[in-house]
Amino acid sequence: MNRSSYRQLAAVVGLAAMLTASTQAIRAQETGFVKEFGTMWTFDAPPLEYWDATYGFRPDQAWLDHVRLSTARIPGCSSSLVSADGLLLTNHHCARRCISAASTPDSNYQETGFVARSFGEEKQCPGMYADQLLSIEDITDRIRSAVTVSDPAAQVEQRDSIMASIRNECSESTRLNCQVVRFYQGGMYSLYRYKRFNDVRLVMAPEGQAAFFGGDPDNFTYPRYDLDVTLFRVYEDGAPRQTDHFFTWSDYGAAEGELVFVIGNPGSTGRLLTMAQMEYLRDVQYPAQLAGYERQLEVLRVAAARSEEDRRRYENRIFMLENSYKAVSGYLRGLLDPSIMAKKEAFEADFRGRIAADPELQAKYGAAWDVIAETQQERAKLAAKQSFYGFGGSELLGMAGSIVQLPGQARLPDSLRLAQYRGERLDRTRSQILGQVSFDTQVEQMTLTAQLHAAKAALPEDDPFLRTVLNGRTPEAVAEALISGTRLGEQEARSTLVEGGSPAVAASDDPMIAMARAINPLSLEVAERVAVLDATVSASAELVGQAIFAAYGKSLPPDATFTPRISDGVVKRYPMNGTVAPYKTTMYGLYARAEEFDHQDPWVLAPRWKERRDQLDLATPLNFVSTNDIIGGNSGSPVINRNAEVVGLIFDGNIEMLPNRFIYTDEVSRSVSVHSAAIIEALRKIYDADRIADELQRK
Amino acid sequence: MNRSSYRQLAAVVGLAAMLTASTQAIRAQETGFVKEFGTMWTFDAPPLEYWDATYGFRPDQAWLDHVRLSTARIPGCSSSLVSADGLLLTNHHCARRCISAASTPDSNYQETGFVARSFGEEKQCPGMYADQLLSIEDITDRIRSAVTVSDPAAQVEQRDSIMASIRNECSESTRLNCQVVRFYQGGMYSLYRYKRFNDVRLVMAPEGQAAFFGGDPDNFTYPRYDLDVTLFRVYEDGAPRQTDHFFTWSDYGAAEGELVFVIGNPGSTGRLLTMAQMEYLRDVQYPAQLAGYERQLEVLRVAAARSEEDRRRYENRIFMLENSYKAVSGYLRGLLDPSIMAKKEAFEADFRGRIAADPELQAKYGAAWDVIAETQQERAKLAAKQSFYGFGGSELLGMAGSIVQLPGQARLPDSLRLAQYRGERLDRTRSQILGQVSFDTQVEQMTLTAQLHAAKAALPEDDPFLRTVLNGRTPEAVAEALISGTRLGEQEARSTLVEGGSPAVAASDDPMIAMARAINPLSLEVAERVAVLDATVSASAELVGQAIFAAYGKSLPPDATFTPRISDGVVKRYPMNGTVAPYKTTMYGLYARAEEFDHQDPWVLAPRWKERRDQLDLATPLNFVSTNDIIGGNSGSPVINRNAEVVGLIFDGNIEMLPNRFIYTDEVSRSVSVHSAAIIEALRKIYDADRIADELQRK
Repeated sequence: MNRSSYRQLAAVVGLAAMLTASTQAIRAQETGFVKEFGTMWTFDAPPLEYWDATYGFRPDQAWLDHVRLSTARIPGCSSSLVSADGLLLTNHHCARRCISAASTPDSNYQETGFVARSFGEEKQCPGMYADQLLSIEDITDRIRSAVTVSDPAAQVEQRDSIMASIRNECSESTRLNCQVVRFYQGGMYSLYRYKRFNDVRLVMAPEGQAAFFGGDPDNFTYPRYDLDVTLFRVYEDGAPRQTDHFFTWSDYGAAEGELVFVIGNPGSTGRLLTMAQMEYLRDVQYPAQLAGYERQLEVLRVAAARSEEDRRRYENRIFMLENSYKAVSGYLRGLLDPSIMAKKEAFEADFRGRIAADPELQAKYGAAWDVIAETQQERAKLAAKQSFYGFGGSELLGMAGSIVQLPGQARLPDSLRLAQYRGERLDRTRSQILGQVSFDTQVEQMTLTAQLHAAKAALPEDDPFLRTVLNGRTPEAVAEALISGTRLGEQEARSTLVEGGSPAVAASDDPMIAMARAINPLSLEVAERVAVLDATVSASAELVGQAIFAAYGKSLPPDATFTPRISDGVVKRYPMNGTVAPYKTTMYGLYARAEEFDHQDPWVLAPRWKERRDQLDLATPLNFVSTNDIIGGNSGSPVINRNAEVVGLIFDGNIEMLPNRFIYTDEVSRSVSVHSAAIIEALRKIYDADRIADELQRK
Repeated sequence: MNRSSYRQLAAVVGLAAMLTASTQAIRAQETGFVKEFGTMWTFDAPPLEYWDATYGFRPDQAWLDHVRLSTARIPGCSSSLVSADGLLLTNHHCARRCISAASTPDSNYQETGFVARSFGEEKQCPGMYADQLLSIEDITDRIRSAVTVSDPAAQVEQRDSIMASIRNECSESTRLNCQVVRFYQGGMYSLYRYKRFNDVRLVMAPEGQAAFFGGDPDNFTYPRYDLDVTLFRVYEDGAPRQTDHFFTWSDYGAAEGELVFVIGNPGSTGRLLTMAQMEYLRDVQYPAQLAGYERQLEVLRVAAARSEEDRRRYENRIFMLENSYKAVSGYLRGLLDPSIMAKKEAFEADFRGRIAADPELQAKYGAAWDVIAETQQERAKLAAKQSFYGFGGSELLGMAGSIVQLPGQARLPDSLRLAQYRGERLDRTRSQILGQVSFDTQVEQMTLTAQLHAAKAALPEDDPFLRTVLNGRTPEAVAEALISGTRLGEQEARSTLVEGGSPAVAASDDPMIAMARAINPLSLEVAERVAVLDATVSASAELVGQAIFAAYGKSLPPDATFTPRISDGVVKRYPMNGTVAPYKTTMYGLYARAEEFDHQDPWVLAPRWKERRDQLDLATPLNFVSTNDIIGGNSGSPVINRNAEVVGLIFDGNIEMLPNRFIYTDEVSRSVSVHSAAIIEALRKIYDADRIADELQRK
């Protein structure tokens, strides 16, 4: 039957998911890939067979080199060269620091946007750099042969040392920025050589309102209407860098059904997690985390509502918590989705089957899954204690806990300390305690009360922690007594204790210190056991990573490592809320959404966008979605077509994409990009920046 | 703390649900209402205390009378009077028959829309009428006292007879259209007296594309962009009906946070269902129903793809199946939502507690829940047999089944027949068999094969039905043999069998008839047992309905009865897909959605809407959502503010509203209305209908 009409019909009744899944199954069979591991391919292992079988597209090495050399990693994000004169395209949210730094007391470019009218007006970005990946070398054998001992700890040391010397040797001999990248949790090692450009200047940035229209509520979602774009220029020796490796601009931009590639630096994924690890996240860790966020949010909202000053004081923390809440809810939703978990289960069965089929692999890796599962079970039993046996719920109690623990931890060798006191963290904690801190007594009391109520609900009645802390009193009474009785709010009281060390702490009659002293042994016991369990999981997880590589080789892309990857995908609508989410949004939609919320914050149009509405072609595509495999770090990645022309700019994923952290699916999860046509339309009609639009469109 | 800012923040992270729930709990406590039963209030029991406590609004009797008399029930829908000259406002989808009837060979008003430029051009609608509710009388005591016997069947007869005589007596004495309405499954009876207007004429209807923009995919969803509006005029004695009871038009229309009322005729709800009944729907009935739809859809899509003619032949059936699929999926999603089921459970516990607390009530009603639960358990065990022991999967096999059953059923007294042969249905079945039918052999074979595969998967291997039908052969082979071997496709073959009665059927060597004969005893056995179980559930459900009334009185609105109700609600955004669905959409959004899908069907703008874009104020609100409690039958209901001014017109619910059939919730479920401002804007700028807009806006 006619395929596209079948698809359209299927989408209508939500059967698209089924269909796509079966199409993928066919693909996977044909080309040997496991879709669930996603498509974050490294440039030294492009899946040419799979691309050819799926899209009828098999790029040559020149295409791959050109594409790699036309992109650049920047701090925390990705970017691409988009003109012969070194124009660099990335997201507005990747350029905030630079935009703020370029602002003056009279002009806040974050608010007003910025357009350089000439090279001379382009503003240097302190601390900004761009890394262009020149070459990749497989150094797995060199690393392996350098590891000669059998003791695990000694192995780590040998490995770290050979990695450092390879990196240094490379940097010295090439003058390049070299990095040793560990793939498949140690299954493979590569040497990445980058050319670093340190002179990066701000060319154009829209208003924050245009870049982040819809703000926090619309963040992580689609349909979207954001011009999340910034243009830099790479300079070399004080002049715009001249280059042959840049992406030209597509005349049309992304079209529905089109094959597109995203090149960027995905930061981190957890696709190697075993079922047991995912179940732990689903059943234990994430629910606890969400409950914790809710507790904090409830208090902070009350606090923020007290006055305008309080609103400003807590606004950021509230938004950050809400953001975390949204992200973790999204992960959890994915893990709760039986169809997603069924895929993971099927893959794990296949994977373990392959290992079991080879006695050597089985001997080396076969036990890892069960070890992880058993360890996670013990962790789950410890979870409530881990959540509450400590100094949570109040910053003052947290300080007290650190004051009580510092002397003992300082006496230990670094490797035996609790994680939060290792390395420079011990000193940092100490200076924090000694520094200026302002406490909000009301908030302290509310959060501590909420925390103790939660502890009461989670722990058995006769729990030692509850007996120690509450001792028959109500959470309200305990929190009130501690917060009103302590002198730790005074800097001097804290420094006396820290400087007095163990004897001062032991002698203190401050009720908060007394409480921390009572909690400390309980807390230490749990923390130490958890550390042991974590180490056990971590060692087995490493084996699983190596087993993946042993069983599938490079046919599965490794977990994200914030190094350059190329991901294939298709521009594609998806089923949403009983109907269909379109593959693109338009400028009509931007004005629609602003009106729909009566122009309330954060759906406020920047003034220029209001004034110039009639000059815009409102049918211009603004954002679009595709099935490319991205995650944090990919922000600012170019979206290109098979001619290596820019058709868009990655800036987010939809809410359905959050579970892709663990398993790649493309039934409803989508990358969200700015459409290339919107960038040109806005440059020309809103920002009077024909100079830049012309440069982008020059062939 | 500031309430509205708290709300806004909460919405952002999806906590609104929690908040609203607790607000409702407070309301419920204060006013004695149970929110889960919804707000479909009858006009003789308006919840004045609850409205006052919740909104600070307590309408007087004059307001209530005015509002009731300004609305009218029309066939299958609701409507309201909106001018002193009898203009009647309803949905386009409630007026389709009239619009088609008014069309001529030269002008298809369904496609082009229709505007009468004068009274003279207004076109009569054959079969259309409008019922205005004049009065309500509680006749529970009259009914009860007429029931003097104790045998249940005789009780039913006595009740039916008194109901009929009350109705007839009323109609004769008043010349009104009288109806006896049974509330709370027999807990209360009322006599409703309506004035019926038979001369209803078409005044204005937009193009089908404007009324149903987004078509089937967007149906049942929100955000929406539909001008689902039609205006009739009520005539009396050949002239426009003059009336004081009509709604004036609001100058502003629905605003966010505003209290609004919906007056209309909700058709049917199942809020009295017990937990056991809902679990049966969730675990047994709906999954089986959905699987059945999928089986049919799969075949019909293949069939429709064979040729353009086949596409037209099957298009409607496909869309109807998809619609049913969407609706049942929505119900199921609600029943699978633990938070929704928890509410039902809590209510049932409260309800049963109240009954148990009163020995008399307990004796009368207390056993009903357990009887239902036990019966449903047996039904669940029978479910697979019920699904497959029969003549499903092929129209020819269905015909064969009827041919085999007809002689026996015809011999039985009506009340002992299977439901599908009772009353006039026996003759109808007979004429269908004797009439012209055209069979699609390929579809027949595919559906029968699919049905037999499903039966194989659902029934145990040694099942008698499977043994009878398959007898070791594959579904493909059986279907092929039956469909290609039967002569039932010929009208003559069928009539010979029907007219020959039992002997002819018994003697037939047609393979399809032979198969139907073999299936028949199995099928009858299951059908008879299911009928007994259904009757048991039904009798107990009636007791539960009466118990509700005994325990809560009129403080709970009765289930929907397609009689006038008034529902309170608030215009309100809601959390959706990680962000917020706005309370309204605008005309910008209409153009946006058309562009987003590149103007593909069904997101096609009507030509006039394309041409006149620049004349419209695109910021005009188009649709909006509110928390009013509606269901099928409410289509065309006015949405009014506390001044009894029209602010909108109900035309749908969002997808989240589907589970409201069983439990009313307002965290994310919403009614969807056309905004009053859109109607005026479109009349004036698109349809050149100032005559009508002026009439609507006249005070």
